[in-house]
Amino acid sequence: MESGQPNSAATQNSSVPPVEGVAGGGTSYGWVDGGLQASSLGNGAIDPTKIHSADLLHVWSMPSTANVSQQEAPRPLEHVNLLAARNERESFQIALRPKVSWATSGIAGSVQVQCTDLCSSAGDRLVVGQSVTLRRVVPMLGVPDALVPIDPLNSQINLLPGETSAIWVSLNVPCGQQPGLYEGEIFLSAVRAEAESRGESLTKSERYQLYKELRNCIDITETRDYSSSEEMVQRLTSASTTLRRMLALPSFQDCQENNGLGDMMDEDIMNNVAVRLKLSLTVWDFTLPLTPSLPAVFGISETVIEDRFCLEHGTKGWYDALDHHFRWLLQYRISPFFCRWGDSMRILAYTCPWPADHPKAKEYYSDPRLAAYAVPYAPILSSTDAAKNSLRREVEILKSEAHWSKSYFYLWDEPLNMEQYDVICSISNELRSYASDVRILTTYYCGPSGSELAPSTFEAFVKVPNVLRPHTQIFCTSEWVLGTREDLVKDIVAELRPDLGEEWWTYVCMGPSDPQPNWHLGMRGTQHRAVMWRVWKEGGTGFLYWGTNCYEKAMIPSAEICFRRGLPPGDGVLFYPGEVFSSSHEPVASTRLERILSGMQDIEYLKLYSSRYGREEGLALLEKTGVYLGPDRYALDHGPIDVMRGEVYRTCRS
Amino acid sequence: MESGQPNSAATQNSSVPPVEGVAGGGTSYGWVDGGLQASSLGNGAIDPTKIHSADLLHVWSMPSTANVSQQEAPRPLEHVNLLAARNERESFQIALRPKVSWATSGIAGSVQVQCTDLCSSAGDRLVVGQSVTLRRVVPMLGVPDALVPIDPLNSQINLLPGETSAIWVSLNVPCGQQPGLYEGEIFLSAVRAEAESRGESLTKSERYQLYKELRNCIDITETRDYSSSEEMVQRLTSASTTLRRMLALPSFQDCQENNGLGDMMDEDIMNNVAVRLKLSLTVWDFTLPLTPSLPAVFGISETVIEDRFCLEHGTKGWYDALDHHFRWLLQYRISPFFCRWGDSMRILAYTCPWPADHPKAKEYYSDPRLAAYAVPYAPILSSTDAAKNSLRREVEILKSEAHWSKSYFYLWDEPLNMEQYDVICSISNELRSYASDVRILTTYYCGPSGSELAPSTFEAFVKVPNVLRPHTQIFCTSEWVLGTREDLVKDIVAELRPDLGEEWWTYVCMGPSDPQPNWHLGMRGTQHRAVMWRVWKEGGTGFLYWGTNCYEKAMIPSAEICFRRGLPPGDGVLFYPGEVFSSSHEPVASTRLERILSGMQDIEYLKLYSSRYGREEGLALLEKTGVYLGPDRYALDHGPIDVMRGEVYRTCRS
Repeated sequence: MESGQPNSAATQNSSVPPVEGVAGGGTSYGWVDGGLQASSLGNGAIDPTKIHSADLLHVWSMPSTANVSQQEAPRPLEHVNLLAARNERESFQIALRPKVSWATSGIAGSVQVQCTDLCSSAGDRLVVGQSVTLRRVVPMLGVPDALVPIDPLNSQINLLPGETSAIWVSLNVPCGQQPGLYEGEIFLSAVRAEAESRGESLTKSERYQLYKELRNCIDITETRDYSSSEEMVQRLTSASTTLRRMLALPSFQDCQENNGLGDMMDEDIMNNVAVRLKLSLTVWDFTLPLTPSLPAVFGISETVIEDRFCLEHGTKGWYDALDHHFRWLLQYRISPFFCRWGDSMRILAYTCPWPADHPKAKEYYSDPRLAAYAVPYAPILSSTDAAKNSLRREVEILKSEAHWSKSYFYLWDEPLNMEQYDVICSISNELRSYASDVRILTTYYCGPSGSELAPSTFEAFVKVPNVLRPHTQIFCTSEWVLGTREDLVKDIVAELRPDLGEEWWTYVCMGPSDPQPNWHLGMRGTQHRAVMWRVWKEGGTGFLYWGTNCYEKAMIPSAEICFRRGLPPGDGVLFYPGEVFSSSHEPVASTRLERILSGMQDIEYLKLYSSRYGREEGLALLEKTGVYLGPDRYALDHGPIDVMRGEVYRTCRS
Repeated sequence: MESGQPNSAATQNSSVPPVEGVAGGGTSYGWVDGGLQASSLGNGAIDPTKIHSADLLHVWSMPSTANVSQQEAPRPLEHVNLLAARNERESFQIALRPKVSWATSGIAGSVQVQCTDLCSSAGDRLVVGQSVTLRRVVPMLGVPDALVPIDPLNSQINLLPGETSAIWVSLNVPCGQQPGLYEGEIFLSAVRAEAESRGESLTKSERYQLYKELRNCIDITETRDYSSSEEMVQRLTSASTTLRRMLALPSFQDCQENNGLGDMMDEDIMNNVAVRLKLSLTVWDFTLPLTPSLPAVFGISETVIEDRFCLEHGTKGWYDALDHHFRWLLQYRISPFFCRWGDSMRILAYTCPWPADHPKAKEYYSDPRLAAYAVPYAPILSSTDAAKNSLRREVEILKSEAHWSKSYFYLWDEPLNMEQYDVICSISNELRSYASDVRILTTYYCGPSGSELAPSTFEAFVKVPNVLRPHTQIFCTSEWVLGTREDLVKDIVAELRPDLGEEWWTYVCMGPSDPQPNWHLGMRGTQHRAVMWRVWKEGGTGFLYWGTNCYEKAMIPSAEICFRRGLPPGDGVLFYPGEVFSSSHEPVASTRLERILSGMQDIEYLKLYSSRYGREEGLALLEKTGVYLGPDRYALDHGPIDVMRGEVYRTCRS
């Protein structure tokens, strides 16, 4: 009992009530006991440099297929073990959630993330910033999706009270990397937020005060016509006093205290108070082929680029922007095409914005990472003689090149009636007069109306090749048509003539919807990745996706991203403009795009396995590991994926 | 066409494709046209001081009953018109959502919020910071709930890309305020984030550089044994050079540019580029009674306070903490009681931690804002002679006071069997021997087991007064029992003996659940407010709520708030420790607590109306405005509330 409270009821009664039990309030008070007590943190504000960060925040790892929501509950921190081939990217996530708040303004606290290089015992390295990258997972419509690069020089992220945050860690194994076990660590340290800690930044008024004092001091020291030594002594004294006053500002206090700030302290933090996440990566002696085994052609809307970045068609800025997008998407094992829609789903699709005789065209079309490219059929939008002549010249140049086998024309998106089919046939006749082996890709999800191809809708759909032969070589159908009926694949394939070079490709867009694989926001991570498992299992030889940047119109680079009306959120949007999240112009990938890459990589694993043991065994592997059994039966969690990849590694390493 | 792109396909073809139409991509591209174009923002980074904030962010108002989620869609900005009595708090929300990002690191941008005083034409004022307060709405479990005060001196809030944020504005009209129309404005200006703008803060390394330069300069100017004038000139020159180098730091650039920073600029921002939200408040000549017409007694767990703030029972810090909580809750027209649970739902409940003869006891019990107080029955937890003697002394002191009519004893939470009933009866006998007019409050939701009171469960419940008379005066039943059967109220009331001072109170806790009124997180705002409408309509004369701070155990003030297992989120938690959100020790109210206050205020409006026109007319008003018709039929949106309040104002102003 302290003085000043002489009549306390508790003491007067000489009976201190017992501590409230577990049943307190009829409710489960005391089930969770944080363990950490204020006494161990000292009184008053928490100084994160003096307390082990494990006492301040939860840190745990999550697989790349997890959607780590703001309400995600903490798990134990475990050593992260990953497997990757050369030329492969493998990712995982670090989830963070504050146990307490150590900041003083709005946020729970700041965390500094520092990653070591990953090193093998042979001395080989995967270098942070190049082969190891960190990105913040930012929600879109409340769903974790955008992956915003963390500045490697200022890798602080802010945690909010009661919210789980996630960091996306990617390990990019170069083609020439030595196989072996690479080990490294990621240090996560609670720190004072740069902006708020006393002495770590100057307030506006302090800064202005400094400015005035400095100017004043310059006035004192700069006058040249000194009348006497006395005056000079006086000036020196006066300057010195002013300078001392500046040094006394609170902002400089910690400079005084440790006379160094910076590196030493960071080192200390890492060693003494950081949470350490251990990371092992087995790089194995398989190299993913530079050219994806499955051509996956993805659209980029040039219209969206022109509008958002305010670029006039054909200017240098426009070419630069398209070039930037093309090269950025290539890293995802994707073969991009730019597109612009005309009337009635006419589409101008082209992979290279430069004409065939331009040096950039060769660079684009010959890039080994490009599995297929769209040749622009310019007359689709404006059928002038000039356009036709230019097209003929393009084809004549391209058809003599080795890369011609990668070319295709994509003329019309989902033709619906005989009139539209007739346009395709007429263009085909023109194109085949320039080169007999042109490949025309046509997307469709039904047979043409106005033609009684077959009694049932599905049969009319299956019979499309009979109508479009020889005017289409790549029959690209919506997965939506199949629904969960995998067995219908054989009906589609049976109508095709591989001997004539005909191929079956597929696509997803608005459909199919949950629970089938697709890339909509809010679907499971494995559901995103399963799109490619489905493609591989069904045996299609290529894949098309209509749009990667098809968000709503805006005329400012940093304008809010809105999804288009009438589309499921995320449909047609696989990356975001960097300007929305920071001053960077680099596109910001979605977690869905990363999962597409993972799916594309899975295909290479399955292909390797099948090349050794046969396709039937490959299918059996997919099934027995529980990764993918059908459009509504596939892994819900990450476990089976690692089992499958591990099995390929175990059975295929040399 | 720019040089360097001589062979552009577009120009070569001499056909520029048409701009993609509304149907582009088969999807609704171009429905939303932001209007603002990058050209009007200048090139490169957006300078928010030069652009009207309306081009950078959406601002709109929302009523206090809206749960403004991160996905809330923008609406037009309208003039806010509010009505309030004296001694009333009326609140609304300002929603903010970035149209573009103007910050450069992680956030979309910072917004400065500035509010003028509200002034009447007669020159009366409602002063910002006192009568006008601003709080950020912070989500708990993803639901907007915590109201974190905005520092009036640094009223910047950060907006995130693609997220709607909300500010809770409260107008507190003092008792003595002159009626009239008060007008003011709230200015919302996009600003550069303090921490990130070039020149607005010093980086760690800049700061350290400055520190070194200043020290260096002091060394130069401070030496006293100058050998010659030449040396002094040299020193002055050297100092001046060093100083100029400091001034050249980017951090000082804007000091140079506008040579003033600060106030002038703020003024400019407000006048030229801020979004202005106009605010009118009609203060009318009704003063809410200081003492709430309906006693609403709410529990505060002393155990939770002791644990979280690491306070030992009976110490000065412990008394201070309880005192702080008591006084803070009083502003919500709530009569707090502290509580600690014992075995089998025994409860020690007391409003004042000091004994009756302590000066603080008089201060507490006499406070006109306190409508009812719990007298501690200390022996409930430890039945010693000392405890009993102390109790007798307490009652003897209190029963002679004018405030004794506000007193009650709360001994047992929801007794379930005859054994527990017997304990209550035995305590009652003891208490009535000290004061014949003691009031004992008993909460229950069923009849006692082990006694065949009646053939049905509901009848057994209704007959409880027969068992507990005269050992309970306040029969406090769960609203859950009624369900949506309002008509059952008459059965409960019929069993009571008002002539013996018996009253019917109600409570909510885990039940009733959606769609009935309660205070769980995730319910509608009107559902929160409707708890008190229900109480008024059903005619109970008091209300009890078990806990306001009953979150899970933690031993650090700033520890994450976890809701207790087995309870619906938010149940028993109406405010949060300030330490979780900032360095403030002030509790942080939930939106639910504010809506409770609003409901308590609505009761005063309804009471005023009924005092003029009769209770039947009051009930008719509630019904005809659509505010509240029954436990599953009440206003879903705010409109009816304003209609009802407006009608009371129109018909009751003098």
